[in-house]
Amino acid sequence: MLLTYEMLEVLKSLAMMNATRKVVKISSKELAERIGQSLQTAARKLKELEDEGLIDRTLTKDGQFVVITEKGKQLLYKEYMDYKKIFEDEGTIKIKGEVFSGVGEGRYYVSLDGYRKQFKEKLGFEPYPGTLNLRIPKEQMYFRRRLDEERGILIDGFSTEDRTFGEVKAFKCRINGIEGAIVIPKRTHYPSEIFEVISPVKLRDKLGLKDGDFVEVEVIL
Amino acid sequence: MLLTYEMLEVLKSLAMMNATRKVVKISSKELAERIGQSLQTAARKLKELEDEGLIDRTLTKDGQFVVITEKGKQLLYKEYMDYKKIFEDEGTIKIKGEVFSGVGEGRYYVSLDGYRKQFKEKLGFEPYPGTLNLRIPKEQMYFRRRLDEERGILIDGFSTEDRTFGEVKAFKCRINGIEGAIVIPKRTHYPSEIFEVISPVKLRDKLGLKDGDFVEVEVIL
Repeated sequence: MLLTYEMLEVLKSLAMMNATRKVVKISSKELAERIGQSLQTAARKLKELEDEGLIDRTLTKDGQFVVITEKGKQLLYKEYMDYKKIFEDEGTIKIKGEVFSGVGEGRYYVSLDGYRKQFKEKLGFEPYPGTLNLRIPKEQMYFRRRLDEERGILIDGFSTEDRTFGEVKAFKCRINGIEGAIVIPKRTHYPSEIFEVISPVKLRDKLGLKDGDFVEVEVIL
Repeated sequence: MLLTYEMLEVLKSLAMMNATRKVVKISSKELAERIGQSLQTAARKLKELEDEGLIDRTLTKDGQFVVITEKGKQLLYKEYMDYKKIFEDEGTIKIKGEVFSGVGEGRYYVSLDGYRKQFKEKLGFEPYPGTLNLRIPKEQMYFRRRLDEERGILIDGFSTEDRTFGEVKAFKCRINGIEGAIVIPKRTHYPSEIFEVISPVKLRDKLGLKDGDFVEVEVIL
């Protein structure tokens, strides 16, 4: 079958007029206006759809009547299923990052009671005291920026006698099926091309990772 | 925004590669093959999508990386919602018919116990003894033919001492919100441009119909 995307566009326009469910009266002029094309183009496309058995067309003294056939409906249904698939796991994204060794700061922060209690309460797990550091390659930066824009799960800041600890934004995630969370300090000087992942287990050992390895993180937005 | 349906086609192709959820590596050559267009066309379309802010594109020494932006996702989502709407009442069709007076045959058949009991059991209502006759205009014949192809609800035939009564096919329907059923005898000489509707009430009176009036019947397939 010679089906162009342009034909699909017209078929969809007719479907939006309920032509899958009833016979609709439409002049080629009216269709032309709807699809923003010339009268000739609209008439030709209707003819093509008819030739392909995608619509059933009747001309009477009262005008032109069109209905979408089962074959036409199946074609539209395939599109529908494609879109459904596209939006199936709508709330998740996948970011690739390169493992690198931090200076142990992560371990220090995760161990602080002020954060730890909130991780347990808001993320649902007791984190291993340490973080997996990931550096985001240039081509993945779109999603890293998205994380900056997204709200995430807010981990409140707190104060001890000595100093103040800032807010942290967390996103639940999975790495190779293991649950965890991306944690991003909200302090402004935090470098934007990296993020850290916490998890109930020591990810580096559990996944056998070494510096320079790439991992894919499935993030729940 | 200057958005053509062709651009949408490419955007959807990228989405089918999960580019709404992750950064995908794709050469213009590979895209050209996917959409069945020339290399130049594919490259130009990517450029257009980028210019419209529908994708985010990064070129590195490793190749071309693409991800669909929030704006691009919104556009695809609108399409998704359109298709969802198209298939919302998937199982129903609407047929228009012209009211005409029969010769009273309908009343006779509906009153027969052999049919009446089955109507009650299989359609869920006790029919008024009589039928509303509808003649299908030429341009609506597509759906009339569909009824012939569809299974419907089978009302078995039966025999009395004198004669045999044949099978009838029924389809639940609504006319102006009133429940009823289209009944079509399976005997072969039954004229294909008409059908009869039964209902718990006398439709002609209830809806104030007279010969020559047109009514829309919502049929559940």
